[in-house]
Amino acid sequence: MDSEEFRRYGHAVVDRVADYMKNVDTYPVLPQVEPGDIRRKLPPSAPSSGESMDAILADFESIIMPGVTHWNHPRFFAYFPANHSGPAILGEILSAGLGVNGMVWQSCPAATELEEVVMEWLGKLLDLPDAFRGVIQDTASTASLCALLCARERSTGFDVNARGPDAWSERGALRVYVSSEAHSSIEKGAKIAGFGAQNVVTVAVDDRFAMDPAALEKTIAVDRDKGLVPCCIVATVGTTSSTAIDPLRSIGAIARKEGLWLHVDAALAGSAAILPEMRHLLDGIDDAHSFVFNPHKWLFTNFDCSAFYCREPETLVRTLTIMPEYLKTAQDREVTNYRDWGIPLGRRFRSLKLWFVMRSFGVDGLRRRLRAHLALAHDFERWVDESDRFEVMAPVPVQTVCFRFNPFKGQGTETDEGRIEKLNERLLDEVNRSGRIFITHTRLGGRFCLRLSVGQIQTGARHVEEAWHALRTSPVVEAWKSAD
Amino acid sequence: MDSEEFRRYGHAVVDRVADYMKNVDTYPVLPQVEPGDIRRKLPPSAPSSGESMDAILADFESIIMPGVTHWNHPRFFAYFPANHSGPAILGEILSAGLGVNGMVWQSCPAATELEEVVMEWLGKLLDLPDAFRGVIQDTASTASLCALLCARERSTGFDVNARGPDAWSERGALRVYVSSEAHSSIEKGAKIAGFGAQNVVTVAVDDRFAMDPAALEKTIAVDRDKGLVPCCIVATVGTTSSTAIDPLRSIGAIARKEGLWLHVDAALAGSAAILPEMRHLLDGIDDAHSFVFNPHKWLFTNFDCSAFYCREPETLVRTLTIMPEYLKTAQDREVTNYRDWGIPLGRRFRSLKLWFVMRSFGVDGLRRRLRAHLALAHDFERWVDESDRFEVMAPVPVQTVCFRFNPFKGQGTETDEGRIEKLNERLLDEVNRSGRIFITHTRLGGRFCLRLSVGQIQTGARHVEEAWHALRTSPVVEAWKSAD
Repeated sequence: MDSEEFRRYGHAVVDRVADYMKNVDTYPVLPQVEPGDIRRKLPPSAPSSGESMDAILADFESIIMPGVTHWNHPRFFAYFPANHSGPAILGEILSAGLGVNGMVWQSCPAATELEEVVMEWLGKLLDLPDAFRGVIQDTASTASLCALLCARERSTGFDVNARGPDAWSERGALRVYVSSEAHSSIEKGAKIAGFGAQNVVTVAVDDRFAMDPAALEKTIAVDRDKGLVPCCIVATVGTTSSTAIDPLRSIGAIARKEGLWLHVDAALAGSAAILPEMRHLLDGIDDAHSFVFNPHKWLFTNFDCSAFYCREPETLVRTLTIMPEYLKTAQDREVTNYRDWGIPLGRRFRSLKLWFVMRSFGVDGLRRRLRAHLALAHDFERWVDESDRFEVMAPVPVQTVCFRFNPFKGQGTETDEGRIEKLNERLLDEVNRSGRIFITHTRLGGRFCLRLSVGQIQTGARHVEEAWHALRTSPVVEAWKSAD
Repeated sequence: MDSEEFRRYGHAVVDRVADYMKNVDTYPVLPQVEPGDIRRKLPPSAPSSGESMDAILADFESIIMPGVTHWNHPRFFAYFPANHSGPAILGEILSAGLGVNGMVWQSCPAATELEEVVMEWLGKLLDLPDAFRGVIQDTASTASLCALLCARERSTGFDVNARGPDAWSERGALRVYVSSEAHSSIEKGAKIAGFGAQNVVTVAVDDRFAMDPAALEKTIAVDRDKGLVPCCIVATVGTTSSTAIDPLRSIGAIARKEGLWLHVDAALAGSAAILPEMRHLLDGIDDAHSFVFNPHKWLFTNFDCSAFYCREPETLVRTLTIMPEYLKTAQDREVTNYRDWGIPLGRRFRSLKLWFVMRSFGVDGLRRRLRAHLALAHDFERWVDESDRFEVMAPVPVQTVCFRFNPFKGQGTETDEGRIEKLNERLLDEVNRSGRIFITHTRLGGRFCLRLSVGQIQTGARHVEEAWHALRTSPVVEAWKSAD
């Protein structure tokens, strides 16, 4: 494909994306396909001869599009958002067009220096401590793994890196503390880093599903008595189930007193901290050693773009550094080589899209949109709360509402719980199958809950209203009404 | 930015990329900037109000472009290639436009099923064993880390995952065997996974820089005598310095006999195996448990796209699985949830670009281009070999030539080595500063070597000729000539 052919099809593809932005709400949010439906339309082998781009794009329409879950649909309320925006996509196109690998400064000076600058911009927006230095990673899972590795190496004097199991066994088991609501990536990271799942200690939460600092303190003391080695606390600002906010200030004081690494996982909720009125979410962040949040979740920057900050970047670099001859450059002493700030060696030019987003929206534009999403979530929370048959299942500190259908609201007994769960499983299946909205579920205090998470760029009042309408008029809810 | 504004700027940005494809050879390959040059042109904070896309794109031209290392320049011969192509960029644009997160089947059925299919296509192209199942990861570093984790868990009955250091200390140190020429990511991965650097055992190479199987066998025996626990062999097909090929068949026999996990890192050279005449590179792959190669290096698919194959996907999944309530879906038993096939939870829709590439080029088109690159590398090798003042420093099994300037060629003594190194350091600096070509260096058997690695999509005969000309006419070489 020469440059003129690329130009022609590039325009066509951009038009396709522009049309998609305009018409995305005409698709069922969740595709109406069964396992295997896509794959059986695809041939078993690659073609011998090249095919025309027209044929490929036609198949994209007829085979791929019917199997896409529309994350950027205004009625996508599942999981957490992974939103995009025009400026982010433009940055992504230029990044793909340049096709650089920013592993070291020399391999693309602009990629390295722009990344340093946009991480500083973002750090200021969140009012992070001055000492925090940032790097873009793919996801919070990977960033949190890096934090766990830093904690491991810091508490063993970089000896696990050097000697592995010998270093572990001399010191005893290193312990990682998380709330029972922490993200699964922490346990996964602890397994990868060799801590072992049994050393990820679950600390009890309060009735708001936030970590109980008193329980944390007690757990650490019990561990010390047993000869175990407290190493790291992972606090969550905005848990995945209900966006509960672990109290950073109290946890930070404990981390400081105990000499533990404190990692803060604010993957979703970190974005909210660019609002002065929500900055309280990060009160106490000064005691953290590392912090991650995902602009790709709720800051209009295409997936993937995770912002990882470290108060002691020298610990991060020492933990992950490699220095083979073929990667040495004349500038190594003067520059940042981001290769040593994460797991993979190769790195895409991700700062470009984040730069485009921050400049095109401006701080005011970003704040305005986040405020609108927060207000929509609180509207929905109020409707649920005021309804006779639905109930709110957790506080709503950010933009996600946990709720359920409960026809026994206000009169329920313990024995109804199983029945309520079944009703909500049916409701979830019904509304998602309808294609009108896509929501997901979780479990809080053992109870099955539905989640509505607001944050896609096109989501406005009427979309949240439609969600509420879809829920109230779903067959399982209607059936109950007529049985009344 | 609404859809019409996106359309307009999208066309502009595509035009910019098309022009870049056409004119990339007018840029200096390596930008003429010093550390800090880019960053000092950027303001210290994000703007309060949104800026126009015209202003942002103007800054992209004036600030960013002068600091870009042009990886897709036809005279980029540094590191290994990371090539792109029109079809790949089109796929990337659509992927960004959809903005999905393919972490589980439900979160984008098309992303999951297309990934399964293109990995099968690629597996057939490489004639991989039928049992191999593929997944796209970001880089070979991450894929090799997954392989090391599988090896660790397989040899401990998944006990390190469960119990961490207790599991290690009961068994003794697990050992990983690599050649002295293996990529730095293996040591990095072993440190991350908790093996410890001291348990990454370097096996001697032969005079072709390939792992010596006899030395491997002996090293394993010595370890067993000491009570250490052999766990994993990482064989490299195409080392980073010189693309040396570890002999898979002999190594595979040892792995089988010893019951060790065999991981094959063919990050660059794996692409060559789509050529029937080069498939011998993978002779013996049947004994491997895992295998990685990067279509983003030398298969015209934008960075990042690393193809990781596993003979026992159940081991991979069991090693990395997580199953929190909020990620459970009704289809979990019938589908692939790629979330459990790698480190990060979130996943971009990367299969799209690879599908576009394989269909648009066709197998024949891919093969034709790889053959042309191989021929160019061998031309360059011959010119160096026939020259009076340059010498080839290693066999050229693929598309990378290790060489050096040696004015004492054929008459050198040991004492000249230091002087030759200095001359080559100057030569490297001179040709890279000129902006005409970009090459990098390595060290082989202690000797400083220059590397010329062929593989960017636009690289043709005249570009390799220009490289050879730039080298022969560089001041340090010319000065020697006139001093003759």
